[in-house]
Amino acid sequence: MSVRGVVTGAADGYWRMKRKPAVTLLHLGPGYANGMANLHNARRAFSGIVNIVGDHAEWHLKHDAPLTSNVRAHAELHSDFIRISKSSRDLSAAGSQAVAFSKNGWGKIATVIVPANHAWEEDAVSHESLESDGFTQVSDKRISEVAECLQSGKKIAMLMGGKALFEESTEIAGRISQMGDITLLCETFAARFQRGEGRVSLNRVPYFAEQAIEFLKGFDCLILVGAKNPVGFFAYPEVKSLLAPDKCEVLTLAKVDEDVNSALDSLAKMLNAPKTCDKQSRVVKEPVGDILNPANIGAVIAELLPEDAILSDEGITCGLELYTQTMGASKHDWLSITGGSIGQGLPVSLGASIACPDRKVVSFQADGSGMYTVQSLWSMAREEVDVTIVLLNNDSYAILNVELARLKAGEPTDKTRSMFDLSNPSLDWVSLAKGLGVSAVKVRTVEQFREQFEQSMRKKGPFLIEVIVSQDMSAGFKR
Amino acid sequence: MSVRGVVTGAADGYWRMKRKPAVTLLHLGPGYANGMANLHNARRAFSGIVNIVGDHAEWHLKHDAPLTSNVRAHAELHSDFIRISKSSRDLSAAGSQAVAFSKNGWGKIATVIVPANHAWEEDAVSHESLESDGFTQVSDKRISEVAECLQSGKKIAMLMGGKALFEESTEIAGRISQMGDITLLCETFAARFQRGEGRVSLNRVPYFAEQAIEFLKGFDCLILVGAKNPVGFFAYPEVKSLLAPDKCEVLTLAKVDEDVNSALDSLAKMLNAPKTCDKQSRVVKEPVGDILNPANIGAVIAELLPEDAILSDEGITCGLELYTQTMGASKHDWLSITGGSIGQGLPVSLGASIACPDRKVVSFQADGSGMYTVQSLWSMAREEVDVTIVLLNNDSYAILNVELARLKAGEPTDKTRSMFDLSNPSLDWVSLAKGLGVSAVKVRTVEQFREQFEQSMRKKGPFLIEVIVSQDMSAGFKR
Repeated sequence: MSVRGVVTGAADGYWRMKRKPAVTLLHLGPGYANGMANLHNARRAFSGIVNIVGDHAEWHLKHDAPLTSNVRAHAELHSDFIRISKSSRDLSAAGSQAVAFSKNGWGKIATVIVPANHAWEEDAVSHESLESDGFTQVSDKRISEVAECLQSGKKIAMLMGGKALFEESTEIAGRISQMGDITLLCETFAARFQRGEGRVSLNRVPYFAEQAIEFLKGFDCLILVGAKNPVGFFAYPEVKSLLAPDKCEVLTLAKVDEDVNSALDSLAKMLNAPKTCDKQSRVVKEPVGDILNPANIGAVIAELLPEDAILSDEGITCGLELYTQTMGASKHDWLSITGGSIGQGLPVSLGASIACPDRKVVSFQADGSGMYTVQSLWSMAREEVDVTIVLLNNDSYAILNVELARLKAGEPTDKTRSMFDLSNPSLDWVSLAKGLGVSAVKVRTVEQFREQFEQSMRKKGPFLIEVIVSQDMSAGFKR
Repeated sequence: MSVRGVVTGAADGYWRMKRKPAVTLLHLGPGYANGMANLHNARRAFSGIVNIVGDHAEWHLKHDAPLTSNVRAHAELHSDFIRISKSSRDLSAAGSQAVAFSKNGWGKIATVIVPANHAWEEDAVSHESLESDGFTQVSDKRISEVAECLQSGKKIAMLMGGKALFEESTEIAGRISQMGDITLLCETFAARFQRGEGRVSLNRVPYFAEQAIEFLKGFDCLILVGAKNPVGFFAYPEVKSLLAPDKCEVLTLAKVDEDVNSALDSLAKMLNAPKTCDKQSRVVKEPVGDILNPANIGAVIAELLPEDAILSDEGITCGLELYTQTMGASKHDWLSITGGSIGQGLPVSLGASIACPDRKVVSFQADGSGMYTVQSLWSMAREEVDVTIVLLNNDSYAILNVELARLKAGEPTDKTRSMFDLSNPSLDWVSLAKGLGVSAVKVRTVEQFREQFEQSMRKKGPFLIEVIVSQDMSAGFKR
């Protein structure tokens, strides 16, 4: 399906799992525009992507044909690298440069704009592939400063993000954390976090600003390891934007484009850290009752998730529980929605599965956001990817009700409420999936969910489980 | 459904029918980005729209939270007017200015960017509504020049576009056309064309560049009336971009933002044009055989379309026939896809129906482009709009096959062909519609189509007829 939110999100998922850039083919400004929302997310995930954007033939541009737009101005919104090819001879060089650039640091978005005539004129040449700059090394001075801080006896949190959430890095961080009063944290929206049984466990910084402020309030020092200094997702009246305490010292061990792993390794050597550390053990929790609430759904997934699964979380309000429940699941990769632009979960799951065809992907997907790129289901059927979609139908944009209440903007009117409501008419995801070529079932009890989820873990191919969620959102999230 | 391609397209359709701006509510850069493709089309339709784009609270922006982006740079891609509100006190003034500006000329896109704190801070005041500048008047000198040309005995075409396609203008043009060898033409992609029985008939400039060049080759002079000098939709190797003959004189009677109707009226008086002119008579063609090809589908629609219906055309390859077939249908408004960014037909139909709840809307929609904003169906169900969707399922992006062949880029590979193919799996639009709350049927013969279309013309509410199209696209469009 050439619906571009699918291809850009899939390219993001592909990079996260494979760390090779996928190429998107977008057509003119509007084609690029259709892919923008997930390019925003990809940029926030620091994913390497190469966009090839076709533009009108050079001589045609000035005539302002209907599809004409300022393609460069579109691309500038997300691209770290932009190159307009100069001729069909130049096209291959432009492509090689873009591919090399996309692999710099933790990943970059590189865009090549191609006037149509460069694609059909016939003097194209092939160009050698180019080296990328890769990661920048962290200075010894910075590592020493962090080492000194870690030995200061202060209450310290190491906030891990980007590539620091890969197993090899969390392992070193786990060893370092035993050297003092050091807590390991995970950024709220991780591009890819290798976690679960046998790996080092990290606590995630909460999504809601007030909870995050409370969570971080005891720390004297925050050490950033591939992560950014945490800020509120949104601003709220009378809530500060920076979440760490005002008096908290913030040090950076490694920025996202720096060689996090080698910096951690040097730090561990400098500190003479122990060779081993505690790992997460397997935890299986029983669902409580037969109600399909987020905690019970999470418990079933945690129990049945196969080893080395990929778990994409766009569960929005339902996703908060899933993180906790799956702490002690079999080891897996956790992929978050990174830029807050909803409609990323299904495409990222598609791309992740194309990158790792031998691993089961579980796409934990809220209904409202799932609708943004529902076309992904068709592409999943076409590519026969091994993705189980756990589609959480709560008939609403529940998060919007939550955020509205948090603004304390007074009691919402019926009109306001109706804008967040998806129950008139209710979406029937089983029919939707069928229309797009994906098998699907609807479940209403924990027992039904367990049965269907268990079966889908045993077979291959795309499958959607529509989970009718019972959820009182008014409880947990109000301020 | 907050899927923004729906709301921006609906706002476009609403303006086209009502000529009052609808307000879209978009959230941050990514929310705006999701609405961009149809803002591109709306800009090409010269529709008046007011976008209210929420941004982070002012103090929060610098912290680069996940959803942060350069909202202004997004809005600049389409907006004729951009205003960032300065305070909650200023917000209402910004809104009034945007509404007034959106009604300038034939219609403008006006965007107000609102930092979140301006929405929740409490010193808002209301602001009086402002006058818009409306249309600019055409100078007498220009009208005289056109009058002189029309009396020169040359072979002349008047190319009508924008507001000149409203009945009152085509009527005057019809009277003028009797003064000499004057042919009346319609621009290829009309935002709104009032046509059919009892109205002046115009020939449409063909979509394909070579056909348009052939079509225009006999004219000595082209007079633009709210239309632009025609250019090829795309460039092709060895085909010129400007479609009128090189030697053809091009005069402008009125630009799109000028008062076309008053200019035509002055011109008619200056020429002492007759008071009446020929009108299109009712034409009913019988379908030929029982095959559901574009000509037969068009014949059935033309026969059964009720008076004052609104006909939205995003039939792409199938739409070419529909135009011809419906020339002699009952009078109706024809809405085209104006900017070439596919996925506009369903949202425009939704917006047109909200603007004119007492008129039947027929949405003639190709499958590939329909998928871009399939979420519109849910909004149609929610709003209970009176829209019949004729969904043309040919299992492919047929236009892409056609355009590829026209580039003469050699025989496509199987991989290339598969990228334009929608048959693996086939979309089942009846299930899709059901999933989104819209009743639907599938038809495979002319008789079945006639029966379902006839019934749907008699009842109210959204209804989708999935038409399994038989179409050999290789025939008509190759170069």
